[in-house]
Amino acid sequence: MAGGGEFGFIRTRLAPLAGGHPAALDLTDDAAVLDPEPGHQLVIASDMLVAGVHFLETDAPEIAAERCVRSNLSDLAAMGAQPLGYLSSIAWPAGVSERWRDGLVAGLAKAQNAFGLCLLGGDTTVGPGPLTISLTMLGQVPSGTALLRRGAEAGDDVWVSGTIGDARLGLDIARGILAADPALLERYHRPTPRLALGQRLRGLASACLDISDGLIADAGHIAELNGVRIELQSSQIPLSPSAVAAVKAGQIDLAGLVTGGDDYELFFCAPASRREIVHGLAASLGLPLTRIGAVITGQGVALLDSEGGAIETGSGGFTHF
Amino acid sequence: MAGGGEFGFIRTRLAPLAGGHPAALDLTDDAAVLDPEPGHQLVIASDMLVAGVHFLETDAPEIAAERCVRSNLSDLAAMGAQPLGYLSSIAWPAGVSERWRDGLVAGLAKAQNAFGLCLLGGDTTVGPGPLTISLTMLGQVPSGTALLRRGAEAGDDVWVSGTIGDARLGLDIARGILAADPALLERYHRPTPRLALGQRLRGLASACLDISDGLIADAGHIAELNGVRIELQSSQIPLSPSAVAAVKAGQIDLAGLVTGGDDYELFFCAPASRREIVHGLAASLGLPLTRIGAVITGQGVALLDSEGGAIETGSGGFTHF
Repeated sequence: MAGGGEFGFIRTRLAPLAGGHPAALDLTDDAAVLDPEPGHQLVIASDMLVAGVHFLETDAPEIAAERCVRSNLSDLAAMGAQPLGYLSSIAWPAGVSERWRDGLVAGLAKAQNAFGLCLLGGDTTVGPGPLTISLTMLGQVPSGTALLRRGAEAGDDVWVSGTIGDARLGLDIARGILAADPALLERYHRPTPRLALGQRLRGLASACLDISDGLIADAGHIAELNGVRIELQSSQIPLSPSAVAAVKAGQIDLAGLVTGGDDYELFFCAPASRREIVHGLAASLGLPLTRIGAVITGQGVALLDSEGGAIETGSGGFTHF
Repeated sequence: MAGGGEFGFIRTRLAPLAGGHPAALDLTDDAAVLDPEPGHQLVIASDMLVAGVHFLETDAPEIAAERCVRSNLSDLAAMGAQPLGYLSSIAWPAGVSERWRDGLVAGLAKAQNAFGLCLLGGDTTVGPGPLTISLTMLGQVPSGTALLRRGAEAGDDVWVSGTIGDARLGLDIARGILAADPALLERYHRPTPRLALGQRLRGLASACLDISDGLIADAGHIAELNGVRIELQSSQIPLSPSAVAAVKAGQIDLAGLVTGGDDYELFFCAPASRREIVHGLAASLGLPLTRIGAVITGQGVALLDSEGGAIETGSGGFTHF
């Protein structure tokens, strides 16, 4: 019957991404049918990324697609979940070439293969607007163990994984504002969802999220939700050598790094009594985990200099809105 | 912190749609955390609808949102699933008014309340393109009972629920091509997902889908997937009084009705031995279920006139691609 167009694309290009996963039903049905493991809860995150807003219109479709899968996985990492698979809904601009569409599929394939995932379902359409990718990532946690944003208490330590601000610099490189630096560009194009860390933080972190709006803004989400104040020590914010060099060269200041979005590192709080366990976890994962501040009574977020004075960070974070 | 924009909208407008459902975590987290019932499989359907493609750019946001939820629910109906909740990802055009956005929320609220659903998560953004709504509907079935498109066999009866072609006429009314008829317009704007029917068809239907691409095209999906031929009797296609009147008035012919999309009725196959049970089900649900043809060996779909000749239906269905 309707052999061309949408159906043909699903059958020839997307169905291979299902990889025979039983939940995907070869992408021939109206929905996916998934078996969560007994004793587990399902964790579901939907993300919508629009060309010109969440990635550059000039980004290759491979890169846009890969970045979408990775950033959507980061939401699962923040919940401590193990990913099970994903659904993709894609609207692409009219008139794109087959090569362009194949690039999009190649990006999905690359990202899902990096994390052992299968495509379980979704939708494709042509729209009058820019490329729009909406993904729904499915994962699971043992019942009752999901990491939440709620739970931080005065007295908790504040931690982040990896380094902060690299993606902001990578974005400036992608935009042609800064000179090329492959490591920074990679951090923007191909963020690493901290999945193993998230799963190991279950029962250890009191609150967790992934940094997508910028360190200061996301710390603010935790502070507001928990009715607490978060004080961050500027000297402790972990920066990559490239970011340190960019600050030295006057290309950006610390305020720019901590308010840039898209780090996709985990920000978490944990009781001070668990400090050694967190350090041990960093060693075992080979991933820097840095204690950057503390939760105290009060409200708001402050970034403090070495004398305890507040550093002005401006609007507090990147919002796509 | 970031009190305005996206966060403010989620907190003040979308969070009430979560209705305190435990899986939604008040929409303050990175993902929803859902408990499927033991012994059940999760059923997940993602749908993306774009203004100007899947609904009219002139449609009020209430109507677009309501239609999206209802058509997404229809995918669950087709799988025999009981809905559990949904996630919404919305990109709206820059510069829309608060009233317009409130209309969108009102449409979601109206649809979810009609089916006892809660919003469990999602994403909102402003894009340079038209209004784009991507929904992910979550449901469950007792393990192993999901209705699939695969399973039809030669000898099966072919059935449809309700009446065919009304939404196509409703679309023509919405476009101003046909004179207003509230019943037909309603069928286009506010399709009824056949959820109760789908759940009752578990263990009864051999294959099932919801008619979104048009009766002939969707019958074609079943024929192709199962390697069978489907013959439909034109005299048996159930038409509403309004559709009969439109045919008599020369506004449309049968081919137009059976290739129009968006019926959101269920198309299913069942062994001939279950015929009386299906009739009983129709009576018990108060929903017409009409036997419109048969599955036979061969391939393709034919719409037959009273003398057994094939009626030309053109391209075979509506595709958004």
